[in-house]
Amino acid sequence: MAIERVAIVGLGLIGSSIARAIGERLPAVTVTGHDASDAVRAAAHELGFCDTIADDPVAAVTDADLVILAVPVGRMADAAAAIAPGLKADAIISDVGSSKAGVANALAAALPDHVVIPAHPVAGTENSGPAAGFSTLFEGRWCIVTPAAGASEDAVTAVTSFWQALGARVELMDAAHHDMVLAVTSHLPHLIAYTIVGTASELEEVTESEVIKYSAGGFRDFTRIAASDPVMWRDVFLANRDAVLATLQRFNEDLTVLQQAIRRGDGAKLEDWFTRTRAIRRSIIEQGQDDAAPDFGRKH
Amino acid sequence: MAIERVAIVGLGLIGSSIARAIGERLPAVTVTGHDASDAVRAAAHELGFCDTIADDPVAAVTDADLVILAVPVGRMADAAAAIAPGLKADAIISDVGSSKAGVANALAAALPDHVVIPAHPVAGTENSGPAAGFSTLFEGRWCIVTPAAGASEDAVTAVTSFWQALGARVELMDAAHHDMVLAVTSHLPHLIAYTIVGTASELEEVTESEVIKYSAGGFRDFTRIAASDPVMWRDVFLANRDAVLATLQRFNEDLTVLQQAIRRGDGAKLEDWFTRTRAIRRSIIEQGQDDAAPDFGRKH
Repeated sequence: MAIERVAIVGLGLIGSSIARAIGERLPAVTVTGHDASDAVRAAAHELGFCDTIADDPVAAVTDADLVILAVPVGRMADAAAAIAPGLKADAIISDVGSSKAGVANALAAALPDHVVIPAHPVAGTENSGPAAGFSTLFEGRWCIVTPAAGASEDAVTAVTSFWQALGARVELMDAAHHDMVLAVTSHLPHLIAYTIVGTASELEEVTESEVIKYSAGGFRDFTRIAASDPVMWRDVFLANRDAVLATLQRFNEDLTVLQQAIRRGDGAKLEDWFTRTRAIRRSIIEQGQDDAAPDFGRKH
Repeated sequence: MAIERVAIVGLGLIGSSIARAIGERLPAVTVTGHDASDAVRAAAHELGFCDTIADDPVAAVTDADLVILAVPVGRMADAAAAIAPGLKADAIISDVGSSKAGVANALAAALPDHVVIPAHPVAGTENSGPAAGFSTLFEGRWCIVTPAAGASEDAVTAVTSFWQALGARVELMDAAHHDMVLAVTSHLPHLIAYTIVGTASELEEVTESEVIKYSAGGFRDFTRIAASDPVMWRDVFLANRDAVLATLQRFNEDLTVLQQAIRRGDGAKLEDWFTRTRAIRRSIIEQGQDDAAPDFGRKH
């Protein structure tokens, strides 16, 4: 199943990075881009990472072998409905949403006669929009593909090969399990980061200017992911509500245990906990999922 | 008040970075180092960042104009008692502890006849030990000096000038206010990071190997500060208990509000919250307290 023409709907950080990565690594593949926003289409045109920018979603997907929906998960159903009339019968439709079970259902409902192979590249930065993308975003990162039971093996292979060609490593996973894994590794961390940055900015005893000045003590690490796209993340929490609330409950239990240890002066419990968490970072670095340089390699 | 001889007690990340920064920026100043650990003293000797390594705390501080205690805050009282017999009458004693009110009291009690000017350089990395230090650690970072009421102005000026000479910016602050500010900007972030890394590694539904593999979705940002020195952080939470518990309560309130918004599907509240937190990061970058490059400047 050769992919010669790709359509990308949604030209923000992820969509524009896919277009750029195709341009660099799959020069024979033509890319048509579309975005619902006039301003984003104009910027994409200027930046030149697509072969063609289509003003209309139906025109964008005509003749595409692979259509990738790169819009916030709350807009997937509408985006799918908008492209439906233009799709080739044998086109593969995929997406990049950070939650998968709900999106898979929405896409299957909107496109009952088409092959839908949901995917999630676990990569990104805190920046948003078509100018924020770059061609190496997916290199060495994982892309999780969550085909429904009985999905076409050829289509799964085509999507897998596509992401591998962009530099990603691919893992197949059940959509519900994906949503639990990502609740832990991505959604809960974002929720916690958004919370603490909000908390810190609204204390009476400490001014916002003090929080900013002394942020190098640890706080600044949280501000990066708390600067991520608000609409994208609103939709993720709404779409993956059950898994997020389940992992949040575990987090709250653990936080209560540590809170009690602090209140009681139980240093042994604190030291034991803090010693165990060191090992995880070592493994993340060993497996190439983070920079080994101190401070994430920030300049000093 | 000329500082010609500095003694550093505790040769971990911070102590060894001070020694290295003096070597680079204040070449006329001689540095004597001491650490209670034989292994650390041997490593410091090998690394060569001090002019002299003293095996004995009393010998280390003889003739020193400025003595800096760079040990975990729970060990400050013992470290101060150990050096007391060797101190010159006009020596200034300072420290680098991350909590200040408790440490100031401990030092004043242990050294009633000496000038104590507590300080806290808000800088560090997740690495520990004498090999982890580097001479530029304090450049552009803030050092908070918390003199007691009535402290010698000359001594405050000497400590201020010393830290400025190492590249830091200096702010004077009341010790109790320092502890509230740092509870927000440093201690609470570390507590939350330690918690979530522990939570993620002990879920039944998601394996530790999956957490590591997909950590680039956000989780890995938390693992850096959760890899910080366990003993240092145990002591910080015990020493700054009241301020940490007070800010933790605010955090818990905010987290409950967001949890409820997710449960109720209140997207407007989530989007509003997530939009406000973006501005903080922009200010941190503008004020030179973090890297403007996406992903903290990690390599892609």
